[in-house]
This record gives sequence, C-alpha cells and structure tokens, in this order.
Amino acid sequence: MKTIVLKFGGTSVGTINKIKTVAKIIADYKKKKFRVIVVSSAMSGVTNELVKKSKAISKNFSNAEYDVLVSSGEQVACSLIAGRLIHLGYKARSWLAWQIPILTHGEHKNSRIYDVNKKKIFSYLKNGGVPIVTGFQGINEYERVSTIGRGGSDASAILLAKFFKAQRCIIYTDVEGVYTTDPNKLSKAKKIKEISYEEMLEMASLGAKVMQPASIQDARLNRINIEVKSSYVKKSGTLITKRKNIINNRIITGISSTHNDAKVSLIGVKDKPGVAASIFKPLSKNSINVDMVVQNISANGRETDLTFTIKAEDLKKTQKIIKTNKNIKFRKLLLKKDVSKISIIGVGMVTTPGVTFRMFQTLAKKKINIQVISTSEIKISVLIDKKNIKKALIALHKEFKLDN
Amino acid sequence: MKTIVLKFGGTSVGTINKIKTVAKIIADYKKKKFRVIVVSSAMSGVTNELVKKSKAISKNFSNAEYDVLVSSGEQVACSLIAGRLIHLGYKARSWLAWQIPILTHGEHKNSRIYDVNKKKIFSYLKNGGVPIVTGFQGINEYERVSTIGRGGSDASAILLAKFFKAQRCIIYTDVEGVYTTDPNKLSKAKKIKEISYEEMLEMASLGAKVMQPASIQDARLNRINIEVKSSYVKKSGTLITKRKNIINNRIITGISSTHNDAKVSLIGVKDKPGVAASIFKPLSKNSINVDMVVQNISANGRETDLTFTIKAEDLKKTQKIIKTNKNIKFRKLLLKKDVSKISIIGVGMVTTPGVTFRMFQTLAKKKINIQVISTSEIKISVLIDKKNIKKALIALHKEFKLDN
Repeated sequence: MKTIVLKFGGTSVGTINKIKTVAKIIADYKKKKFRVIVVSSAMSGVTNELVKKSKAISKNFSNAEYDVLVSSGEQVACSLIAGRLIHLGYKARSWLAWQIPILTHGEHKNSRIYDVNKKKIFSYLKNGGVPIVTGFQGINEYERVSTIGRGGSDASAILLAKFFKAQRCIIYTDVEGVYTTDPNKLSKAKKIKEISYEEMLEMASLGAKVMQPASIQDARLNRINIEVKSSYVKKSGTLITKRKNIINNRIITGISSTHNDAKVSLIGVKDKPGVAASIFKPLSKNSINVDMVVQNISANGRETDLTFTIKAEDLKKTQKIIKTNKNIKFRKLLLKKDVSKISIIGVGMVTTPGVTFRMFQTLAKKKINIQVISTSEIKISVLIDKKNIKKALIALHKEFKLDN
Repeated sequence: MKTIVLKFGGTSVGTINKIKTVAKIIADYKKKKFRVIVVSSAMSGVTNELVKKSKAISKNFSNAEYDVLVSSGEQVACSLIAGRLIHLGYKARSWLAWQIPILTHGEHKNSRIYDVNKKKIFSYLKNGGVPIVTGFQGINEYERVSTIGRGGSDASAILLAKFFKAQRCIIYTDVEGVYTTDPNKLSKAKKIKEISYEEMLEMASLGAKVMQPASIQDARLNRINIEVKSSYVKKSGTLITKRKNIINNRIITGISSTHNDAKVSLIGVKDKPGVAASIFKPLSKNSINVDMVVQNISANGRETDLTFTIKAEDLKKTQKIIKTNKNIKFRKLLLKKDVSKISIIGVGMVTTPGVTFRMFQTLAKKKINIQVISTSEIKISVLIDKKNIKKALIALHKEFKLDN
C-alpha cells in the first residue's frame, strides 16, 4: 500500500464549502487505496486576523505566545476537515502536533522540525485512519508550541512525506501549478508539467509564490516528489522532482521578473579588502535585501565602482545609511529607480551553448538596454528599465519556445 | 503566600481592550503578593462562531472533533492575556490543558475533570509566574482534547482552586454579582453580599445565569469560597460560601421567576403504579424538560389528575407526544399557556415559621391566583398567570424586605 501526503493551503480550506471539496479529494485517494496523510494550513485570513490581535495587544508580543496564538488556526481547519471526512463515513481524526508529537528546535516563530514520532500515526494509518495533521507547528524541548514560520505547512508536509516514506507529496493550492512565467504578467504563460528541484528553487527565490525555497530544498535533500496542483479544478499540476526523472528537458523552463527594483552605484570606492562588507553590513542590519551585485575592475588599481540592486521601497533608507555611515567611502553616489530584473531559468542551459547570447540578442533586437548581468549555473538575470519588462517577457518567452 | 484563582468569562475577554483591562486586574493581585492562577474562557462570540462552522460541516459533527475545534477559542484568549502580562513586565505564560495536564474522563463535549497534575504549575507559581490556563477543557485517557460542556470554564477554575488550595476563586463576569432577583425584570433588585452554596444552587437552577449549577456544587463539595464580580467596575461582588460563614442571614435571599411556561393537565388518569413513568418517559426522550409536577389524590381511588409544567415552546411537541402515544391513557387533556413560575429562595425559611403563609397572603392580597405549588427545604415555587408576574415580583420583593 502506497503512502501519499496531501497538503492543503489556506485558500484551499478558506470556506466551509472548500473544506467539503477538500474532504472529497481526500476520499478519492482513499478509494484508490492509498494510505493518506493530510496536512492543513489555517483557513485563509485566520492567521492574519490572529497576528493583528497580537499586535494590538503589544508591539513586542511574546514569540512563545505568538506560537500558541497562531497555531490555533490549523487546529480549527484540521478538526473541520476530519469532521467532514467522518461525516462522509471515513475513519479520520485531527492530529495536533503535540499529540504525535512533531518535535522542533530553534527559536519560537522560526523553529525547525527535526523529528516526527512515527508510532501513533503509523498504527493509525495501519488501521485505515486518515490523520489530519496540523501544519506549520510542533512542540519544542520544553513542550511548548512552536511554529516554523509563515508558509511552514509545506515544510510540515514534506517532512511527514520523508518520515513516512510517502511516494509523493501533493501541495494543493489556489493555482494550477508552476507556470513558465507569472500568468498575471503574461497571458501566454504555460503550466509546466515537470520541473527540477534546482529550477524550482531559482523560481521560488525569484518570486514564484507557489512554495517557500526552504521547503523545496527539504524536498530536494530527501528526494520527495512534489506535485503542486489546484484544489478547485481536476487537472494534473506540476511535478517537482529530480533532474533525472524529467523526460522532456527543455533548455529554459521558466522566466521570472521582478516588479520594481532600484539600482545603487557607488563610484570611486577604495579597491581594497573589506570595502564591500563595510557597505553591505549596515544594509543587512537594517533588513535591506541586496540582490544583484556587480563590481567593476578598477582602471587605476586603487578605485572601483560598485553597483547593486535593492527593492525600490528600500531606496530612501539605503541612501540614508550610505550617506550617514562614515565607514563607507566613495566619490559619487548614483541612484536609479524604475528598474526590473528579468531571469531565465533552466537546467538545460548548462549543456546548451549560446543561451546567454540568445537572451542578449533577443533583448537587443527589441532595443532593450541591459544594465547589470548576473548568472548562475541554471539562471541568467539581467537588469533592465522597468518600462521594458513586458516587451522583454514576451520576446524571451517566445524565443525559448515557452509559448507552446 | 496565599493562592487565588481568577476566572474570566467570555465577555470579560471579548475585545482587545477588555483583555488589557483583565491583565491590569491580574497585575493588581500580583502587586498584593498573591500567587495568582488565571483561567480564561474564549473571547465572547468565538465559541458560537466555531459551533456554527461545525454545524455547516455536518449536522452530526463528531464530538471528538467538536472538542478540538472549540477548545481553540480558550487557547487564543489565554495567549493574548499572557502576551499582555508579559508586555506589562510580568512573568506569565499560557498553559494549555494538555501541557499541565488537566485530566478528564467521560464523553466528549461533556467530560469531567478528575485530576490536575500540580507539579509543573506549582513550580511555575513558586518561580513567580502567572499561569494563564485554558478553561473548559482537558485531555482524556487517549490524550485527546475533551471539553466539559458550555460554561465549563467555571468548573475548571473551581477545580484548580481545589487542587491548589486557593483561598478564593473569583469569577469575573459581565454582571456585578448575584442579585435578589433579575435586575432586568425588577429595577429594585439588589446585589447580594453573601449567599450560601445551597441558595445559589437553587437560584442557578431557576435561571440565574451567573454560574452553572454543577460548578456551584463542585465549590460546595470542596468548600471553595467563590466571589462573583464584574471585570468592568471596581466593586465587591457576591460571595458564595457555606451557611456558617454568612453573618447576616435573611429569611429570603432571592426571588426568581420564569418567563414563559405552559401547564399540562391530564384528567382521569388510571391511578396505578407506572402511570407517571409512562407519561414522562417519552417526554424525556424528546428532550422536553418537565418542571413542576402535581398529582391529586383520586376521589374514587381508581382515577387521578396529573398536572405538570413545561417550557411554553415545548407545548406543541408535548401535546403531539401525549396524543399519539398509546401507552398514555386519560379522559381529558387540558393545556394552558401563558403561565410563569415564581420562587422565593432562602436558607432562613427552614427556621422561620409562616414563610409559606406570608407568600400566599402577599399574592392573595394582589388577587393573584396560585395554580400549582411546589416546595423544597429552602425554596417555595408557585405557578401563576404570566400577566401577574411583575406584580407578584414587586410585592414579594417588598414583603421579604429585599428592597433595602
């Protein structure tokens, strides 16, 4: 008998009717003779409501109590799903993290699951039960409720899949799968049938909101096949798996773009060790995420130009930090708003020469200027003017045959 | 160092601002050097919302999952109270029933607490912490969440008071205490300073909504002094204690009345054993509560007249059951709507002759006809026409000197 883990996100259990649909999906797998483990998030909106309450109580609301507070959301969703399955005649019950238990360590609000006690759940599965497990939470060494960060129900599902050697972990969400690019930005975006962990990691890091990078990494390390699909429509979704399993390898699997970035250039920076650190340390301390970084070779051997990108909303803060921090020395500060990053991702590019050239040529043909370039083994990103992003998306999506 | 249990009802923690007030009340007891154990209900409205959800999922929603579902409400309230106390600089934390644990047996939705593991809470108290304990819930022998029925947070508080030998259990609620009669029905109603468990039990059974009879009984058996008071106004409330502790014993402590009852008379019932049971069994099966029961001695030794009262809303159902049940034999069925029961309660009446006479005379003077009488050691109830209830309340409240 094969074991399968089904994970339902907040929007999938957002209303009573949706919970009824979810129960039907679970029942279908039971009919197909799977051993089914279910993981659920809180009903959509509930967690935000609870967080709002905590903020109204205190701007520095205790992290430990935060975990107690928000973990109640999954408890509610799981009891309702279990209740519906029982109503349909199935053996089901909610399993709260402490009842299993799911063990975590680390700080409150940001714990990590390190073990799942298999005994009770295994015996429950053997007796034909469907355990409905609260995602996103566990208990720590002090028997206190701990949560594993927002979106953490994916991580719960993947670790349960690991500990119970599940054949597959299906992530039900409000989209039909992973797309070649954001369908809201490009109507020609196509659902991807199969994608490698590595590509998915890049896509997630670049803003594809389907799954958190940490969960994809967990799945990759434990070789768990993930399927991302919609709980609303009966269609196959996107399989996230290892490269070897993917039959139709394309050169480029997906394209992603950022919405609104800013470019910061420091001209005439002393070219000596520790200079970059002196700039990025205060930014990091202020929670400003630096994305692309380019440093030119200095002509005279003493000075260099340093360029990096940040979110546009962080620009003012960044400017202030650079201007007021006496450790940062430079001749001139150039700031540019309204830039965006466009990235092409694909494991195929490693073995296919000329991908970089094709990307640059495609943009050049559309008279789009490239301002910064950064590459990895399976990704090429370029910074362009924000106004050109749609044009670039259309051209690259076509060039790399993602329209079909 | 004296231990005190503070219990907050749903309306006392109904909003963020009210939770802030509650935290201040708790802090005041800490300043007075008490060891404080807090028990909280769910924020008002929350439990009803959850119950509504369960009904939408299934008309026969699983009792076990119901307990998981609704117990989340107390979890939220307790984490918010603890969060606020921490914000104010106190050592506090939420204690979920399973973390202590509070042990129950019995059916889901209707369990009873039989033990509280004192170890962890005791050590936490010794270290100066304020435990905020989820009321209304525990875990059963299968480590499943169990609840102890609506209003059960009072029972949690009283049992914690018992197990931790608390000097007093203070029940914070939305009224200032227990009144001589319902202030909504009679503006002259006065707050009672002290009332015996027995009187309080009668008042609660007769509809005083301050506390559930079962909790009062628990307190009586364990000799726990209860104070009922408001969390909104800083005034002393009502002390519920044993008779001996009450200094100013009055003859009558309170008067209660029902809103809308109905009277059912079966004329010409066979006067033989088992007849009453044959009538009341089908009513009980249909969840119809029979209140006052009077059976006249039959004149001819073969027939009798049986009269009883029910809630007016159950009248149609009762009529149908009596008419269609072939085991119930009688000559004539008389039904009367628009009747109400008025009761006077007081431990003093046992030792004071003539109380019954004074009650009947008072009503007679007002030309109020008494239709049914039923008495206990500390209570006299009479059934009168609903239209006379206000007049009767005013007259009796004055007669037994409750106006002062």
